[in-house]
Amino acid sequence: MAFDLVFFGGTGDLVWRKLMPALFQAYRHDSLPEDGRIIAVGRDDLNDAQYRQQIQTRFEQVDGAKRPNNEEFARFAQLLCYVRMDLSQPQAYAALKSRLAQRETDSVVMYLSTAPSLFTTVCEQLAAHGLNTAKTRIVLEKPLGHDLASNRAINQAVGQVFKEQQIFRIDHYLGKPAVQNLLAMRFGNALFEPLWRREHIANIQITIAEELGVEKRGSFYETTGALRDMVQNHALQLLCAIAMEPPINAHADAIRDEKLKVLRSLKRWTPETLSQHVIRGQYSAGHPDGQSVPGYLEEKGVNPSSSTETFVALRTEIANWRWAGVPFYIRTGKRMAASEAHIEINFRPTPHAIYQSPMGQANALVIHLQPKDGLELHLLAQGQSKRSQAGQGQTLSPVHLDLDFDKRFGSQRVGAYERLLLDVLDGRLNLFVRSDEQEEAWRWVEPILKHWQNDSLGPRPYAAGTWGPSAASAMIARDGFCWSEET
Amino acid sequence: MAFDLVFFGGTGDLVWRKLMPALFQAYRHDSLPEDGRIIAVGRDDLNDAQYRQQIQTRFEQVDGAKRPNNEEFARFAQLLCYVRMDLSQPQAYAALKSRLAQRETDSVVMYLSTAPSLFTTVCEQLAAHGLNTAKTRIVLEKPLGHDLASNRAINQAVGQVFKEQQIFRIDHYLGKPAVQNLLAMRFGNALFEPLWRREHIANIQITIAEELGVEKRGSFYETTGALRDMVQNHALQLLCAIAMEPPINAHADAIRDEKLKVLRSLKRWTPETLSQHVIRGQYSAGHPDGQSVPGYLEEKGVNPSSSTETFVALRTEIANWRWAGVPFYIRTGKRMAASEAHIEINFRPTPHAIYQSPMGQANALVIHLQPKDGLELHLLAQGQSKRSQAGQGQTLSPVHLDLDFDKRFGSQRVGAYERLLLDVLDGRLNLFVRSDEQEEAWRWVEPILKHWQNDSLGPRPYAAGTWGPSAASAMIARDGFCWSEET
Repeated sequence: MAFDLVFFGGTGDLVWRKLMPALFQAYRHDSLPEDGRIIAVGRDDLNDAQYRQQIQTRFEQVDGAKRPNNEEFARFAQLLCYVRMDLSQPQAYAALKSRLAQRETDSVVMYLSTAPSLFTTVCEQLAAHGLNTAKTRIVLEKPLGHDLASNRAINQAVGQVFKEQQIFRIDHYLGKPAVQNLLAMRFGNALFEPLWRREHIANIQITIAEELGVEKRGSFYETTGALRDMVQNHALQLLCAIAMEPPINAHADAIRDEKLKVLRSLKRWTPETLSQHVIRGQYSAGHPDGQSVPGYLEEKGVNPSSSTETFVALRTEIANWRWAGVPFYIRTGKRMAASEAHIEINFRPTPHAIYQSPMGQANALVIHLQPKDGLELHLLAQGQSKRSQAGQGQTLSPVHLDLDFDKRFGSQRVGAYERLLLDVLDGRLNLFVRSDEQEEAWRWVEPILKHWQNDSLGPRPYAAGTWGPSAASAMIARDGFCWSEET
Repeated sequence: MAFDLVFFGGTGDLVWRKLMPALFQAYRHDSLPEDGRIIAVGRDDLNDAQYRQQIQTRFEQVDGAKRPNNEEFARFAQLLCYVRMDLSQPQAYAALKSRLAQRETDSVVMYLSTAPSLFTTVCEQLAAHGLNTAKTRIVLEKPLGHDLASNRAINQAVGQVFKEQQIFRIDHYLGKPAVQNLLAMRFGNALFEPLWRREHIANIQITIAEELGVEKRGSFYETTGALRDMVQNHALQLLCAIAMEPPINAHADAIRDEKLKVLRSLKRWTPETLSQHVIRGQYSAGHPDGQSVPGYLEEKGVNPSSSTETFVALRTEIANWRWAGVPFYIRTGKRMAASEAHIEINFRPTPHAIYQSPMGQANALVIHLQPKDGLELHLLAQGQSKRSQAGQGQTLSPVHLDLDFDKRFGSQRVGAYERLLLDVLDGRLNLFVRSDEQEEAWRWVEPILKHWQNDSLGPRPYAAGTWGPSAASAMIARDGFCWSEET
């Protein structure tokens, strides 16, 4: 299967940090289709050899095991070529066109790893130069807009040039093995579906926590914030994967139809829920691990009176038969106490207790997304059977059933970008976001953004290295629950 | 809490192999009630010191870590004393009476580790000497009869001297941590109960397999066979623990009431089910692990034309709302391919498959009783995500969630006899079998015994070191299933 894969923004960070290493892994795993070209497009004055040299140098910054040796790189580098062009100049596209015209391929993938402000121009120019054929696919990286209107504008501009089934909108969380496994778990096993409903589930928590602050991305982050950066996309995609009804099949649109239904069923915001069920926070200076780190307002590129949130915790519900009344909590932030992403499904307690349970302990299924990738089933068992306990009646102890996907599948595992790139080359849309999903997510998020604009209170401070402002704990405590790390 | 614990048959195998080591462990764990005496009763002419010496010598045959050092033994041995008596001589009981009269205790436990033929005599003599007071407890070891009538006769004789709540009938399988945990699992967790029914479970398999043959117990085994030795007691107790309804509380009679209901709900045998759903086997010579071993008919003490079964496989159903139509398979035997006891709960396949599953793979919960003690939850997950699979649609791979109770609770674990002895001293009847349970189990087993008496076919031969006669596989295959090790 012959392909041409064009990276717009081919000298940018995303390409050499993520995309090239992912392609190299696919090449090394022998899973990259044969007869491909990887065409980097950029403004720098480089020829193919110089570009290959640049990528080789940058590979040296890649993790040990994933780094190619010289011989491996030389073979992989055969695939790479470079086209110099200024994307804002219409006449520049002729160079790309002639490079693509050099040979016949089964697919041409246009990967827009450029500033989003260029998306519309690039699409228009591709059309103007006849580069939007039926075999063309276009890949878009976030952010795709900063609100519903701007997201729609991009989707409409791209949609005038490409059909929906040619458009691959990346949410790299969907490429994570644990997220793909969430659907396989739910719909490939008979065990979970009967339990996966309001009758048995007390609450669901989605946590995406980072230890890092905004680092060098302060000026970018100022116009983004945690809600746009993490909730509108990643967290809501996870929520959809947990909450969706069984799709009629495993094809992209069947799955995306079900995700869209979830987003449409999310409870609409009211003034009361906006003020009580959404907590925004902003990290202040702190001492995680004994090291002094600055607060957000002291970060480079940040307005010292910024009200940009670096933390969001919210509570929502899904208004349908399966989930009515079950709280879904989402929490994400920077400079938190740990770097981890997980989903916790908390089951209701037994309706009738004949054993003594440790306080507040019930069953839970924890799906770890990172750093580890696995499942934990939290149960209660009879463990301490010394006489003193036996005499008083039986006390249960918490136990975990564990599954570590990395250990189980080890070398077979495929990284998120590798998975997504291979799927683009295969034309599989399952792990990509459809425009209507994206717009529905923005529609739900927008009232929060508007509420904050008019809310003089601003984000609540939290010390760097903690789990966010105490208001987030108070919110969940009002429902009688607590965040997973607090149990 | 002062106690006297009297071992009738105090010089016998059970006492020094199982009971003394268990008591020593309890002593070492500091869980034995203080102020106790362990009074061994036997025909040998020994004084206390000689008896202690004998036990010490025998402890040297006990496993390394469980063996006391001299100092530990000297302290433990303070508890031991010896009374010489011939149990068949009424006047002999005066010696025991005067020994017991030496001090006031909270409880006196009479542990009958003698030949069952003495049970009735001992009980009568205890009564005749006024040794059946309200603080007396009596412990009975199997076999308690060889059919319903003989079992009833023993229960009635004992019942004339002791009240049911004073009688502790041992089924040492109930002392196994994994079996106690089965109830804690089912009724201490909210996750299992919704799945634990005909709507979700395809079949349940109970396997108790031994690699050993009859060893030196040929003449005992000749009059027993696998059905009496393993099915009537251990296997049916396991079946009850799996199938019982949630008891109203964790007290002995609440649990035993529910077990009795299961036994009463077992499908009654018909001529058709007796011939099609019960397979008996007898091992012939074989070469397990490359070693030549004799067949059952060549074993010492065995009638060369014996039709005693060393293997049983059977299929039954439980006629109630929860289980109607779900096959329960029981399988036990000697000289099998492995020494292991486990319960496998096989769930139904997904009603609608959107992923490709490996042939015949569905979800299962495996409860390991021995040699390991733990849980395995068998699921399907998406693991092999190389391109070739991705292109063809998603194929699931089997994965296991594991819990090893020994690793989890390690040093806290309590062995079966230690658990049971401590419960007797505490007066806890939960893990002991009530007479009506025992009789109901015999009532269900008896038609099989009668059918075999009139069945000229005899047991089917199977080679030592295999999983039994092929008819056992054919039986389960007719339902569309297979035994767990054959998947």
